Amino acid sequence: MSVRRRATTEELLGRARGGERGALARLISTVERGGEPAREVGRLVYPLAGGATTVGITGAPGAGKSTLTGALVGIVRALGEVAVLAIDPSSPFTGGAILGDRVRMQDHFLDGGVFIRSMATRGQLGGLSLAAPSAVRVLDAVGFPWVVLETVGVGQVEVEVAGAADTTVVVVNPGWGDAVQANKAGLMEIADIFVINKADRKGVESTRRDLEQMLDLSSPSDWSPPILATVASTGEGVEELWAEVRRHREYLEGSGELARRRSARLDDELHRIVVETLHERAEALWRSSELSGLRAQLDAREVDPWQAAEQILGRLSED
Amino acid sequence: MSVRRRATTEELLGRARGGERGALARLISTVERGGEPAREVGRLVYPLAGGATTVGITGAPGAGKSTLTGALVGIVRALGEVAVLAIDPSSPFTGGAILGDRVRMQDHFLDGGVFIRSMATRGQLGGLSLAAPSAVRVLDAVGFPWVVLETVGVGQVEVEVAGAADTTVVVVNPGWGDAVQANKAGLMEIADIFVINKADRKGVESTRRDLEQMLDLSSPSDWSPPILATVASTGEGVEELWAEVRRHREYLEGSGELARRRSARLDDELHRIVVETLHERAEALWRSSELSGLRAQLDAREVDPWQAAEQILGRLSED
Repeated sequence: MSVRRRATTEELLGRARGGERGALARLISTVERGGEPAREVGRLVYPLAGGATTVGITGAPGAGKSTLTGALVGIVRALGEVAVLAIDPSSPFTGGAILGDRVRMQDHFLDGGVFIRSMATRGQLGGLSLAAPSAVRVLDAVGFPWVVLETVGVGQVEVEVAGAADTTVVVVNPGWGDAVQANKAGLMEIADIFVINKADRKGVESTRRDLEQMLDLSSPSDWSPPILATVASTGEGVEELWAEVRRHREYLEGSGELARRRSARLDDELHRIVVETLHERAEALWRSSELSGLRAQLDAREVDPWQAAEQILGRLSED
Repeated sequence: MSVRRRATTEELLGRARGGERGALARLISTVERGGEPAREVGRLVYPLAGGATTVGITGAPGAGKSTLTGALVGIVRALGEVAVLAIDPSSPFTGGAILGDRVRMQDHFLDGGVFIRSMATRGQLGGLSLAAPSAVRVLDAVGFPWVVLETVGVGQVEVEVAGAADTTVVVVNPGWGDAVQANKAGLMEIADIFVINKADRKGVESTRRDLEQMLDLSSPSDWSPPILATVASTGEGVEELWAEVRRHREYLEGSGELARRRSARLDDELHRIVVETLHERAEALWRSSELSGLRAQLDAREVDPWQAAEQILGRLSED
């Protein structure tokens, strides 16, 4: 009888680098689940990554991000293979709405040079802020020269996730509310390029003025985020968007800003790894029988919760 | 020149126990801010607490929780001093909407036997789940026989915060959506008593049926949550609510459930203290100059984020 051995992470990575999409999908699932296996993937792909150009597309639900991403992929595809990572922090499961959106990208579904993958949060809060940059790094390490990171929603998690890309495009629609919402959510701070999508509707100019006013209030920088108008469904303005993405890339590389951003991101990532590991250790200790005596003492009021915490923290340090 | 010495926490607690409301307010502010000073207050009040009857009132914004709390306080006040702790997890600052709501409790504002305090989250997520039980314990330790904990909103934090009370009243309004929302948010699991407030509107019976159906689906217990109808603005049904709160209290004490709940709460609290302390240690290390060398190595790609994390975790253990 032969026993089928489970592929090791190294083997999976080798196969993914050889172009095997199933192996790549498994690596990303591992990253998505978090914990030590995700960290192992992280360690393995780290030295292989750094070559990809990453573009983040973010904005409120319904802004037309998927259609815009699809149109952008149509252009970028001529230059090389493209990976699209679609992230929905509000959904606890992969699927549902975001897979519905994927239908709009069906032009690319049968193209082997375009890899499309949805990710959603599994387990603890903040999991995606750790998983998203790791997944981008996997795609980078596997050899995709272009990675598009699409995030749904405008909250703190989205802002953190969007930070995993070198260039961030914030998509709003004509109408006053969107721009203000983007500002409140902190998207103004991370936007390198603004897109007013669905620009065939009225209100484009007032939205543009709102964005300009908010930009005037933000701290001055060498890069002034351009404001573009697109109609993603017809492709209008998408070439211009791509030209701006390239221009921003040149700015990033020429000014040293790319190195600064990547350094800050590495620092963030390190921070998240430390916090995640500490949590895991505390959780493991929590579930262990080791603590039952301490719990009995706490119940009997022989120790207070702060004394009990001291003892637990002492045990955590012994590991 | 005389230097005015800052009151120690012990002194503040002594004055608060002597009836000084300003000292009490300062203790609660300390708890609200979190960190080591909050833990000091926790340690000091812990042996003094345990005598108060705590009632939590929770439900969606606009359900009439403040009016109901005000009406309930009117009844309880005849039995002794009452403290009301109003918590809004969605608001980053004390004030605003929740203070507006407090106006509805103005009947009690000038009554020295009623202490009213709003709390909001400051700093990190989850801060309120730690601060709320501590604040309740301060009020208990200071001698309030009755503490009412009002939480605004229906999310995970509200469910956790509501858990700081011995008896939890979930307030819904006539209409299908509320009951379903309460179910989705996990409020069904923590409800000891249901109140359909604004019962002068139509839809009371269908809401009652919805709640009954959801209760039928939940795991059986010795206590079956009653469903009451109130019109808090006129006081209708509030005496009955109070009678059910007393009946639930008798059940809790007679069945041993009170001890079980307090034990589970103590366990939760211990868990949160451990996690908070770990976070603080990691943050302090983060800000220290100790890490600058490691960061330079990370930037130069001489170490990867996982190796850097190992080193940091090693240093945290040395504390």
